[in-house]
Amino acid sequence: MRFTSEQRLDDGVLEREFALGEIPGILWTPGSVSAPVPLILLGHPGGLRKMYPRLVARAQRSAADGFAAATVEGPGSGDRPRSAAAEQARADLRRALAAGAPVNGEIVDRLILPLVEKAVPEWQAALDGLLSLPEIGGPVGYSGGAISIGIRLAVVEPRISAAVLFAGSFVPRAMFEEARQVTIPLHVLLQWDDEGNDRQLALDLFDAFGSKEKSLHASLGGHTGVPQFAGDAAARFFAQHLK
Amino acid sequence: MRFTSEQRLDDGVLEREFALGEIPGILWTPGSVSAPVPLILLGHPGGLRKMYPRLVARAQRSAADGFAAATVEGPGSGDRPRSAAAEQARADLRRALAAGAPVNGEIVDRLILPLVEKAVPEWQAALDGLLSLPEIGGPVGYSGGAISIGIRLAVVEPRISAAVLFAGSFVPRAMFEEARQVTIPLHVLLQWDDEGNDRQLALDLFDAFGSKEKSLHASLGGHTGVPQFAGDAAARFFAQHLK
Repeated sequence: MRFTSEQRLDDGVLEREFALGEIPGILWTPGSVSAPVPLILLGHPGGLRKMYPRLVARAQRSAADGFAAATVEGPGSGDRPRSAAAEQARADLRRALAAGAPVNGEIVDRLILPLVEKAVPEWQAALDGLLSLPEIGGPVGYSGGAISIGIRLAVVEPRISAAVLFAGSFVPRAMFEEARQVTIPLHVLLQWDDEGNDRQLALDLFDAFGSKEKSLHASLGGHTGVPQFAGDAAARFFAQHLK
Repeated sequence: MRFTSEQRLDDGVLEREFALGEIPGILWTPGSVSAPVPLILLGHPGGLRKMYPRLVARAQRSAADGFAAATVEGPGSGDRPRSAAAEQARADLRRALAAGAPVNGEIVDRLILPLVEKAVPEWQAALDGLLSLPEIGGPVGYSGGAISIGIRLAVVEPRISAAVLFAGSFVPRAMFEEARQVTIPLHVLLQWDDEGNDRQLALDLFDAFGSKEKSLHASLGGHTGVPQFAGDAAARFFAQHLK
């Protein structure tokens, strides 16, 4: 892991881009840090550049609460090499959605399962690098809408202590089985009117999680319309579980 | 409205029992009050004596946040005269539940609709009396699990500004229509594993509410197992909306 650029944001947060082999990522740390801080991994559906405004806002909120935050580019997104199979699955999904057809579980499996297989070890490698930095300690939380990646990470990565998951659709049925194996505390956000979201699937997934401490927070509004109070509640969840 | 007894609780909260005609009630006010405080009406399924431990805990939390809290006995509960029709409906409901039969909408209508008809004007009369006290100002919130009473109050009583509703079952279908007329901010609590609760009904009811600001907070656990963090979030909702 090597840093490729750095800048100070208005609020003093230090933003550093890094490269993990060929994979670009961004690390944000609070303006002034005396002791090693906990870390929140910011999951996203891929496309760091497009997602940057929302990611930096989440990172700045995390930094204000005393946490570092970091993210890496997804496999096949941004400038990373495309996979022909993933591109095909993505095209099939778009076509099915455009036709208003029910999205076939097989398309979702083809799109998401290889992504999870590839992304999770990358997140773990990023975690190795990030936790070796003197300014970052633990514990580690995962926050994100790439919910299948969050589920797999919660199952296989013992360094992750708590997760805020944004309920979304396109979850392979196989992930429901993995969800039953999740035991860390979960705070699940659901946008009630999310046009691209299957609400019942999200509720079923919440039901499936094996965690003894899990809560679901549904707010009105579309996919990107998470209200301030819901964001605040998610931040408080991390403040309670990562300190 | 006349006060019949008063005592100071350990935390300095002043607890006063009152009578509103034949209807007993309890008012809790913060230990030290300089200006008139907002008021939270504590709804419950009936039976003040049995409910007292949970009500006083909610009242003390409200007082700690700077609010008065008050409740009145439900029609046909505690020492109040029974209605033969309500007793019959209650017995029919118990029998249906014991038999594991699906609870008939007609039984629920017979039990709940007359209760709402009778209880709501009583809550409004209590509100008249409570708001005439110099130590109580406004705004007013409703917090409670007698969700049909909360829905009707939210529709007909403009002095109520916000509500925390505990999703429960036994909601007459007619209340779904009223739910669409609710416009005040709502914070809805759902206990995911509530043995006496129809989860889908609770989700449908949440969906029906007409409020532009509404959020659903589902936590693991049974009917009385609302976790501390969920209670805290509900308290913050009132702190944001009743100041």
